[in-house]
Amino acid sequence: MSTFGRIFRVSTYGESHCKSVGCIVDGCPPGLNLTEDDIQPQLSRRRPGQSSISTPRNEKDKVQIQSGTENGVTLGTPIGMLVLNEDHRPKDYSETDLYPRPSHADWTYMQKYGVKASSGGGRSSARETIGRVAAGAIAEKVLKKANNVEIVAFVSSIGEIEMDRNPRSDKFQEILQTVTKESVDSVGPVRCPDPTVRDEMVKLIEKYRDSKDSIGGVVTCVVRNCPIGLGEPCFDKLEANLAHAMLSLPATKGFEFGSGFLGTKIPGSKHNDPFIFDEQNKRLRTRTNNSGGVQGGISNGENIYFSVAFKSAATISQAQETATYDGNDGVLAARGRHDPSVTPRAVPIVEAMAALVIVDNLLLQKAREYGASIVN
Amino acid sequence: MSTFGRIFRVSTYGESHCKSVGCIVDGCPPGLNLTEDDIQPQLSRRRPGQSSISTPRNEKDKVQIQSGTENGVTLGTPIGMLVLNEDHRPKDYSETDLYPRPSHADWTYMQKYGVKASSGGGRSSARETIGRVAAGAIAEKVLKKANNVEIVAFVSSIGEIEMDRNPRSDKFQEILQTVTKESVDSVGPVRCPDPTVRDEMVKLIEKYRDSKDSIGGVVTCVVRNCPIGLGEPCFDKLEANLAHAMLSLPATKGFEFGSGFLGTKIPGSKHNDPFIFDEQNKRLRTRTNNSGGVQGGISNGENIYFSVAFKSAATISQAQETATYDGNDGVLAARGRHDPSVTPRAVPIVEAMAALVIVDNLLLQKAREYGASIVN
Amino acid sequence: MSTFGRIFRVSTYGESHCKSVGCIVDGCPPGLNLTEDDIQPQLSRRRPGQSSISTPRNEKDKVQIQSGTENGVTLGTPIGMLVLNEDHRPKDYSETDLYPRPSHADWTYMQKYGVKASSGGGRSSARETIGRVAAGAIAEKVLKKANNVEIVAFVSSIGEIEMDRNPRSDKFQEILQTVTKESVDSVGPVRCPDPTVRDEMVKLIEKYRDSKDSIGGVVTCVVRNCPIGLGEPCFDKLEANLAHAMLSLPATKGFEFGSGFLGTKIPGSKHNDPFIFDEQNKRLRTRTNNSGGVQGGISNGENIYFSVAFKSAATISQAQETATYDGNDGVLAARGRHDPSVTPRAVPIVEAMAALVIVDNLLLQKAREYGASIVN
Amino acid sequence: MSTFGRIFRVSTYGESHCKSVGCIVDGCPPGLNLTEDDIQPQLSRRRPGQSSISTPRNEKDKVQIQSGTENGVTLGTPIGMLVLNEDHRPKDYSETDLYPRPSHADWTYMQKYGVKASSGGGRSSARETIGRVAAGAIAEKVLKKANNVEIVAFVSSIGEIEMDRNPRSDKFQEILQTVTKESVDSVGPVRCPDPTVRDEMVKLIEKYRDSKDSIGGVVTCVVRNCPIGLGEPCFDKLEANLAHAMLSLPATKGFEFGSGFLGTKIPGSKHNDPFIFDEQNKRLRTRTNNSGGVQGGISNGENIYFSVAFKSAATISQAQETATYDGNDGVLAARGRHDPSVTPRAVPIVEAMAALVIVDNLLLQKAREYGASIVN
Repeated sequence: MSTFGRIFRVSTYGESHCKSVGCIVDGCPPGLNLTEDDIQPQLSRRRPGQSSISTPRNEKDKVQIQSGTENGVTLGTPIGMLVLNEDHRPKDYSETDLYPRPSHADWTYMQKYGVKASSGGGRSSARETIGRVAAGAIAEKVLKKANNVEIVAFVSSIGEIEMDRNPRSDKFQEILQTVTKESVDSVGPVRCPDPTVRDEMVKLIEKYRDSKDSIGGVVTCVVRNCPIGLGEPCFDKLEANLAHAMLSLPATKGFEFGSGFLGTKIPGSKHNDPFIFDEQNKRLRTRTNNSGGVQGGISNGENIYFSVAFKSAATISQAQETATYDGNDGVLAARGRHDPSVTPRAVPIVEAMAALVIVDNLLLQKAREYGASIVN
Repeated sequence: MSTFGRIFRVSTYGESHCKSVGCIVDGCPPGLNLTEDDIQPQLSRRRPGQSSISTPRNEKDKVQIQSGTENGVTLGTPIGMLVLNEDHRPKDYSETDLYPRPSHADWTYMQKYGVKASSGGGRSSARETIGRVAAGAIAEKVLKKANNVEIVAFVSSIGEIEMDRNPRSDKFQEILQTVTKESVDSVGPVRCPDPTVRDEMVKLIEKYRDSKDSIGGVVTCVVRNCPIGLGEPCFDKLEANLAHAMLSLPATKGFEFGSGFLGTKIPGSKHNDPFIFDEQNKRLRTRTNNSGGVQGGISNGENIYFSVAFKSAATISQAQETATYDGNDGVLAARGRHDPSVTPRAVPIVEAMAALVIVDNLLLQKAREYGASIVN
Repeated sequence: MSTFGRIFRVSTYGESHCKSVGCIVDGCPPGLNLTEDDIQPQLSRRRPGQSSISTPRNEKDKVQIQSGTENGVTLGTPIGMLVLNEDHRPKDYSETDLYPRPSHADWTYMQKYGVKASSGGGRSSARETIGRVAAGAIAEKVLKKANNVEIVAFVSSIGEIEMDRNPRSDKFQEILQTVTKESVDSVGPVRCPDPTVRDEMVKLIEKYRDSKDSIGGVVTCVVRNCPIGLGEPCFDKLEANLAHAMLSLPATKGFEFGSGFLGTKIPGSKHNDPFIFDEQNKRLRTRTNNSGGVQGGISNGENIYFSVAFKSAATISQAQETATYDGNDGVLAARGRHDPSVTPRAVPIVEAMAALVIVDNLLLQKAREYGASIVN
Repeated sequence: MSTFGRIFRVSTYGESHCKSVGCIVDGCPPGLNLTEDDIQPQLSRRRPGQSSISTPRNEKDKVQIQSGTENGVTLGTPIGMLVLNEDHRPKDYSETDLYPRPSHADWTYMQKYGVKASSGGGRSSARETIGRVAAGAIAEKVLKKANNVEIVAFVSSIGEIEMDRNPRSDKFQEILQTVTKESVDSVGPVRCPDPTVRDEMVKLIEKYRDSKDSIGGVVTCVVRNCPIGLGEPCFDKLEANLAHAMLSLPATKGFEFGSGFLGTKIPGSKHNDPFIFDEQNKRLRTRTNNSGGVQGGISNGENIYFSVAFKSAATISQAQETATYDGNDGVLAARGRHDPSVTPRAVPIVEAMAALVIVDNLLLQKAREYGASIVN
């Protein structure tokens, strides 16, 4: 399905080589100041062509609001948005028609639909994420207003070069507490806030660029100031919604939150987050945060943090031995120059999906809280 | 929300200390032979009290079909099922009333709902999964009929003791190809098919049992013979649905499929799965399966495999320093004996959720295929 | 699908001759005092066998809450409820096996599912509505707490005997303003608040009972004190939700709200409801209420009222010429005694569905209002 | 919510005075020949300004497909479509700013959202239906391919001038069987296929035009060749989906299908549709069709027919006494010329919503049928 969310919902359309890509955001609160200027920055952060370590295609990606605002203020009605497809250069892909690209969506799309887009990977194209990022920018603005919610993602590993993501590391928790979009962007295109590994990451990407190969990485995201009580028990635990959102992104292979896979190795007596009294807010909080800000599927007011694995990009600038659609062995020649690591560009996309999950759960929880308030 | 799925849907109810737990399965095909005997085995596999390394509580968990079948055949109407709550022993928990249990759902539930179940963790209790397992057993039976789909989960790590899950390991791929529910159960309660690590796993669990602590682990699941074409591009990629399903389970911290987090470290040229012609089935398939049976969000006919991280259980048999609901520091005394590792019991639950995702996507895809068939 | 609602949701199960019928109510606010005593009255009003003009089958229909409450207070978790099937007497139907009953669901179920319940009409049985009524009783209690919302349905026509439902009739508007469940029940089983037609209705039903025939009727329902702002523009206008709910009831043939079909004949200049200032509430209201309490899909604070057409019951106590499943002409013999007019029994069912629609829209609107409150 | 449907889904955006209105159609089968030429005719039928009895505003309403097709063939991906807003003339409405228009959505929108579009009625504008009609045109094309399904709507009453809609009238059933879009349009702008009342309808509309007033009417719609088995028991009966769809249209006040409200007056012995054997199709069918093609919520293969009441338009060309937003009594002056009867223009909109309901249920049923086929 091409719709995500329950109360704050986004529906997207578009693939690589059609007239435009876009989305409808349904359920955005009325009265919000909103113009294209609120949305463009995240789209620009998503755009390729920003440095020597990313692909030089210059997609302009100017968003146009079609509906749902008047005089720069939202009406409460659906917000239609679109971005024209300009620099698609379909010929670059045209000789690949004989071959389904390995580990790309070409063959499964062909099997599922029985038709094939002339080039590009249909909806599995990264361009599909434009609608998500546009919607996410609105969600982030709402969340900022709601509770000063801050959502920041960053690169935490490229290939074997990894930041320490141990939840019990003070340094890691400090980064989660202080990192900003600005600080992430200020350190260059690799978007890693940890100076001890950043240069190695850049070198590794350059190495794969030079060898016409690609390398994956991990994006970690933190949500600060998330209100307490978001998430529904059972099938719609907050982490389940986040996992759904993140694994719906192209090229993702995994998701973990809080202590994650490492949490399987820390015994319960050390993994449990004891409660302490928070004098400032006059409420309980936890001394440690192995839980990643969610307990029993419900946010507890601590930083929510999670990580998303992005595989090494399937589209590489070297020839590959593989079979044609017809079943003949052959060599798929390389075409064009491709981004050796899409992971840094995924940063705003991860933020967008996180924002969509949080805002939808926030609005839902407010319906719940109202219900509780009137029956008591 | 307490409903999961779009065409084959399950809604669950029940917590630890109410009259019964159960579910409604909506959208099960008519004409299926179905009695309690089809469902009970998976419920029994889920049940605690099966060995010295799990908790001795004897929950009988006999399922009763309420509706939707006649003379042992499904009618196509909703299948109501329930399991009575018998051996709940609420007193075991009663003195914990002053303390929210660390890393459990007590405090977040209190915050979300403003009320507290007298004991147990409300819907975050493991008993909630009974409805899922009952529904999943039906889904598995449908899938078996549909395409001989086989779903098998097993323990792949306990704490630091890990099976090799490298997707490029022949041994791992061999296990994925051959493991069965029977072989998993036959090796004892730890449910790990790899003899080289199994004994160490048992010893590790015993060590944590003896130290009144707990330890987590990873459950890996394989879906064999999954039809090609399942999963929707964009927000409902097959892996997104699976991730959602798995992270909706209690105590989960992470999800990865195919190469997973390791896939971020394997360069594209090696990670890509080249196509070859499959003479037997007269169609393409991939030579390797780093993709985990899904490309672009759509199943490609290879084994679908994924892993789920279960944290070390929050409920432990030792005292813990923590604060009361009122904010006073204190010590939460240990009560009762608790399962040192819930991971092996999660095996049938993971299978159930996988089955629910696959059958729902299968039915949806058949609607899609019909649509394609009539417009051409 | 067997689930209704978005935030306050009900899923039902059960048919005539299975173990039990029931439902899961998901999204009920926590902290609500709730026991079976809150639910039973509406179930008893729905029950047949209450007078000489309805069928004498004595279904006891005692509801049992399974989950979601503790010590008589809701937990916020799903409320499972069931009613055992006791007096089903399947043999009464058994000789009808050769014939699909005319204008009943037997044949279409057979075509849709390929299987046939041994007797009764599967899910199209009136027993399916038990789950709805149980859920609706909870919804009504929440609405009463929320804004003193009152929902009352009554019989407004039986066959040709009709109350004046002209929206411009003072008497009709007066009845809408003052009618109560108690007053409706107090006037005998026909449940019509208008004394000028009530006796004729009873006589008409008796006439059809004596001729072993059946006759339909109209149920009108009013929702008083509905908060302003409920309903979503476009596809989920409040009246669209109500129409969906009402036409999902067995035996319904039509729905109209406010001026209804008559509203097509009143010119705009007279049909429009002018605004006046309401000194008491310090806000606008409308002088007339041809709109039926909804404008542009959104409640305006006036009485919401609508009518539902129930056809003459398909199950009659006389023989009918028709064909067998095999296509042979024949005569379907009458079996048993059947209710000559199900319309009066539909009264609590209509109330239940109305309550489910209103409470779901209320909770949704509170999420919307919160959103608006924080961005301004 | 601004999304309709489960498998074939449409989401719409846009109001009267924004850049464009449009929609995303999600779930359209791949491989369908589709260009703007398939969609434009229904949009043109919807357009105002086609005759002396409708408003002279000339909205051009040229649809532009944005995505989801390539070389005139659908890809299976979402189809984005938009229509630019050209001739909106906002000044015509500007002096109405002080007054909420009676029986329009101005006041309830203001109450719901707290903001007001500068003019027009926000999403309750008839322009919102453009997206529905565009989506419906695609749905109709799919249905034509699927089973030669034909959907034709027509005007059956204007004010007091009514066609005989008695389900037992041979003439009415004959019209249902033979009426086409072409025949409906060929008789002039009033779109009534019955010559005995058509001229009176035109005269009546002219009368209300001349008196600067408006008059309502009824649109009846027939779906021929609908496959058997569509519709889900319980909450999603086919008629419930249709009622939801129709009551979601602006200005609607009622819905009835088959015998409708009249069906409450025909005794069961005469209302029941006896089965007969259909030699041609070698299956049962019904001798009469009071059921309107649906029994127990499921299509039975007979003509599906239903009627929708459209109130007299709220926007009239004469002054009205009413109150300002501030609560002061006054006179809302007339502005512009307005359509005295919107009913004829509703014809393609009713067809569109019917098509969306039927195609969605068709695809869903095919998923159900597949399920049944594999378990047997």
